[in-house]
Amino acid sequence: MNNEKLSELRHSAAHLLAAAVLEIYPDTKNTIGPSTDEGFYYDFDFRTPISEIDFPQIEQKMREIVKKWNKFEKIDISKDEALKQFEQNEYKKELILEISGKDEKITLYKSGDFVDLCRGGHANNPREHLKHFKLLSIAGAYWRGSEKNKMLTRIYGTAFFTKKELDEFLLQKEEAKKRDHRKLGKELDLFFIDDIVGKGLIMWLPKGTILRDQIESLAREKELQYGYKRVITPHIAKEELFLRSGHLPYYRDSMFPAMKMDDGDYYLKAMNCPHHHTIFNHKSHTYKDLPVRFAEYGTCYRNELSGTLAGLLRVRGMAMNDAHIYLRKDQIKEEFKAVISLTQEYFEIFGLKKYWFRLSKWDPEHTEKYINEPENWQYTEEILRQVLTELKVDFLEAMDEAAFYGPKVDVQFKSAIGREETMSTIQLDFAARKRFNLRYVDADGTEKNDIFVIHRAPLSVHERFLAFLIEHYAGAFPFWLSPVQAVVIPIAERHNEYANKINSQLIKSGIRSEVDTRSESMQKKIKLAQNQKINYMIIIGDKEIETDNLSVRSRSGQINELNITEILHKFITSIEKREGSDPF
Amino acid sequence: MNNEKLSELRHSAAHLLAAAVLEIYPDTKNTIGPSTDEGFYYDFDFRTPISEIDFPQIEQKMREIVKKWNKFEKIDISKDEALKQFEQNEYKKELILEISGKDEKITLYKSGDFVDLCRGGHANNPREHLKHFKLLSIAGAYWRGSEKNKMLTRIYGTAFFTKKELDEFLLQKEEAKKRDHRKLGKELDLFFIDDIVGKGLIMWLPKGTILRDQIESLAREKELQYGYKRVITPHIAKEELFLRSGHLPYYRDSMFPAMKMDDGDYYLKAMNCPHHHTIFNHKSHTYKDLPVRFAEYGTCYRNELSGTLAGLLRVRGMAMNDAHIYLRKDQIKEEFKAVISLTQEYFEIFGLKKYWFRLSKWDPEHTEKYINEPENWQYTEEILRQVLTELKVDFLEAMDEAAFYGPKVDVQFKSAIGREETMSTIQLDFAARKRFNLRYVDADGTEKNDIFVIHRAPLSVHERFLAFLIEHYAGAFPFWLSPVQAVVIPIAERHNEYANKINSQLIKSGIRSEVDTRSESMQKKIKLAQNQKINYMIIIGDKEIETDNLSVRSRSGQINELNITEILHKFITSIEKREGSDPF
Repeated sequence: MNNEKLSELRHSAAHLLAAAVLEIYPDTKNTIGPSTDEGFYYDFDFRTPISEIDFPQIEQKMREIVKKWNKFEKIDISKDEALKQFEQNEYKKELILEISGKDEKITLYKSGDFVDLCRGGHANNPREHLKHFKLLSIAGAYWRGSEKNKMLTRIYGTAFFTKKELDEFLLQKEEAKKRDHRKLGKELDLFFIDDIVGKGLIMWLPKGTILRDQIESLAREKELQYGYKRVITPHIAKEELFLRSGHLPYYRDSMFPAMKMDDGDYYLKAMNCPHHHTIFNHKSHTYKDLPVRFAEYGTCYRNELSGTLAGLLRVRGMAMNDAHIYLRKDQIKEEFKAVISLTQEYFEIFGLKKYWFRLSKWDPEHTEKYINEPENWQYTEEILRQVLTELKVDFLEAMDEAAFYGPKVDVQFKSAIGREETMSTIQLDFAARKRFNLRYVDADGTEKNDIFVIHRAPLSVHERFLAFLIEHYAGAFPFWLSPVQAVVIPIAERHNEYANKINSQLIKSGIRSEVDTRSESMQKKIKLAQNQKINYMIIIGDKEIETDNLSVRSRSGQINELNITEILHKFITSIEKREGSDPF
Repeated sequence: MNNEKLSELRHSAAHLLAAAVLEIYPDTKNTIGPSTDEGFYYDFDFRTPISEIDFPQIEQKMREIVKKWNKFEKIDISKDEALKQFEQNEYKKELILEISGKDEKITLYKSGDFVDLCRGGHANNPREHLKHFKLLSIAGAYWRGSEKNKMLTRIYGTAFFTKKELDEFLLQKEEAKKRDHRKLGKELDLFFIDDIVGKGLIMWLPKGTILRDQIESLAREKELQYGYKRVITPHIAKEELFLRSGHLPYYRDSMFPAMKMDDGDYYLKAMNCPHHHTIFNHKSHTYKDLPVRFAEYGTCYRNELSGTLAGLLRVRGMAMNDAHIYLRKDQIKEEFKAVISLTQEYFEIFGLKKYWFRLSKWDPEHTEKYINEPENWQYTEEILRQVLTELKVDFLEAMDEAAFYGPKVDVQFKSAIGREETMSTIQLDFAARKRFNLRYVDADGTEKNDIFVIHRAPLSVHERFLAFLIEHYAGAFPFWLSPVQAVVIPIAERHNEYANKINSQLIKSGIRSEVDTRSESMQKKIKLAQNQKINYMIIIGDKEIETDNLSVRSRSGQINELNITEILHKFITSIEKREGSDPF
């Protein structure tokens, strides 16, 4: 199915919506109704407010009306006639004056009894094709998008050619709503954003902090294996550092403004590289010392407009899984391979499979956007191509997508709710060495400055990666990652003591366990634990105390009987292996 | 020995220094020479620069001269006579004019042939008493402390009544120099401060980061045991938060200045409490939920004058081992006890014994400095007194040392190099609940706001605590804490392979091990490892490869023969127990 046909169908559905609304609410003024990527909308000026409760009635009316719609008939009309036709509707009149002012023709489209001002582009035979539609939501929208104008009521809907497509879309929409990281972040007590603290600044609650800490532990462990050294640097630095790095001359708008101190201007760092380069320069290096790899979970701050901030996806404070690798030209290939392997190891652990690599290259026709060292571009792009080819990974090449300082490999993802995004990025940099005068002493004793730098963040920005993971798991985290792994539920008060004992044993073994001794029914406690997506509920009653055989209920409702030793063994093994699925 | 007598002795030594200098360098102009806490100094205007190499000669001359000094003779003199006497010395003339301008008497003191303008206060019989002196160092100092004046040469020295006291002082001075955290921080590659990044901002190198991480791991582990929940909050917040907390109205000068953003002014946080209070308020609490304990290794930023910053002890960016505990009045005693126990556990691990507690109270006579709730002061001070008494710890009480919002218990330390300081502090706060409207639902269903808050940082500010530890251990950290725990040293190149194998085994078992395969002699490698204060050197030669029995050398030079399994067992046990002394 081509997109144009689908757009025409959806635009036709917008006409149909307007026709139905005007029949039910005759004193309403209809304005405009285009198709969108996901469906269509139509903006109305209602006399009395409507809500989503009214959707079924409107949809019913739409189904009635469309039966009489064989076609969209085009009517050419003069400006004066048009103005007369829409005498009661100031919005349409404004449009008509605008269209005629531009010397364009004014056309109306008529279907059934409904006539609308329209440029055209409709489905043939709507009676036949326009059957599978659905109204989705309601929102406020200013007339022509300007807050100086009146606030109108926008009704969103969608339409497809087949019922199957419509149902799939609605299911995915439903799923996306359930998986939305903002919704789950709230329900699972992971994080919040507070307007007094500031927009785009994440307050990590204890359970969200566990997620962050677990992921950071994973990164520390892997980075240790891969020969990285952790460093910790301040969140601020003097103007001089960011002038040297080029951030202030070229990136000032994205940085928080200066703080004027007694010894000069200080800035919050927007990236960790200037600090890491300074550490690299703190002592001298020989060719044998390279590669040097500095890793830091550094929090950076970027000045995004307050209106653009949203959940974890667009923030002002971001903790990066950052590292910088300093290496010789002849080490690029091996090191890039190692970084990609590390990235793949991470994704494997999280069960992420729908990703591909993108080799982002410069554009030799637009040298003004890039550091002009054609030989280095050619050489390094070829190396990266070899790496991706030899690793047999899916990749495509994209011209004019590189950073200004060198080519990069981006890892592209399709998220659980259908968003396509760049998750990780591995960038090669041959500009830093000049700005920071990076050097090493070569085998022949001479000082060289042809140092290459890799900027890499396989786990991306913490906030973004967690948004992604929350949606990926729909909040039901695998055992090793889960903020609360088990809850011990005594059936009656007389089981509390035993329940507390079991809970203590779990905690001592490093399991994140809680005990629920509140005076609620077992059923209610199970329900609460399920809502919290706790991996296991360990139910304690008379039988369990008597036999020492515990009844363990998984999130999916499956019940196993095990003694505490068996439970601990399975739990601990699952954590050690960071298993993707729960231990039983 | 009373201090006044000692001061007089030292001031006499300053005269003696001036007499010696003028004999050796007759064209020098002497200015002033007071006694200090540690000895004395004298500022001179030398024609030709001198250095510490000249000290022995000057000391020799001092010893000669003092033999003729029976006493200090006081001489009253008129302004004109005085000006004549010091005709060649513009510094003395300036002082004479100033003294006479204030209508004070001008007095000279004469000892042997040396006469100086002086207010008096000298030792009786210097020939007898002034024997045990030593010149210490040389420094530049502006005349009268103003950078507008000429730079003079200051010579520091000290003097004691007995040789024993002088030797002890010099030994301690020597020891302090060796233990100085700035010196060791550099030698052991722990951290550095870079003027381009900014003063007071610590750049933690990989080895220093290990220290920080180990201490943070310890804190996380203990805090988990003690029922704390970790949170992570941004380093900045909007003006509104700090107005609410009282920081901006009362503490603005200590904060970094504002950053003006599109949605208001933002500030770097100087403390974590406002953020934690906001988290506490994010959801409602019942009386059963309390105490709630939020822990965070949060980095705060404070605006200290750039001229006052020094090493790790006075910084602008500080990572605090911070937590806030929200509790009911009836829980204060138990919780305070728990916090003190936790503090004691930490100190035990670090082998810190020379500390005592200080109960810092308000002053009921100066209610203007404190939140005026006499009943709460009385009640809580009594509770804290009971806690300290029941725990049978050394403590003293100090009036007028409390925070404005409540009494506190400070932990006072004498550092390895003789500095007395407050290391940890545990503060009770009954002001926060009003500012932040902190509440809980009581057993009877009513909302109460009599929440008490404990601010506590047993491990203090990270930077300060590490300065303390570096000096405490003189850089020779116990095994569990040490940045590099072992180095494998092959004797010849043919042993490299086996050495690499052993090193890998150590690393796989979580030991921070290195292998030194450089083409240097074994002796040199051992020397380097000793300088780096690496706990163990594992020497690999023919015999070791043949027998699988490794030769392990400790920092103190003791050699043990063990196989790798025994070594690993001892190493791992020592780490698990965080033993204060090395495993063998």
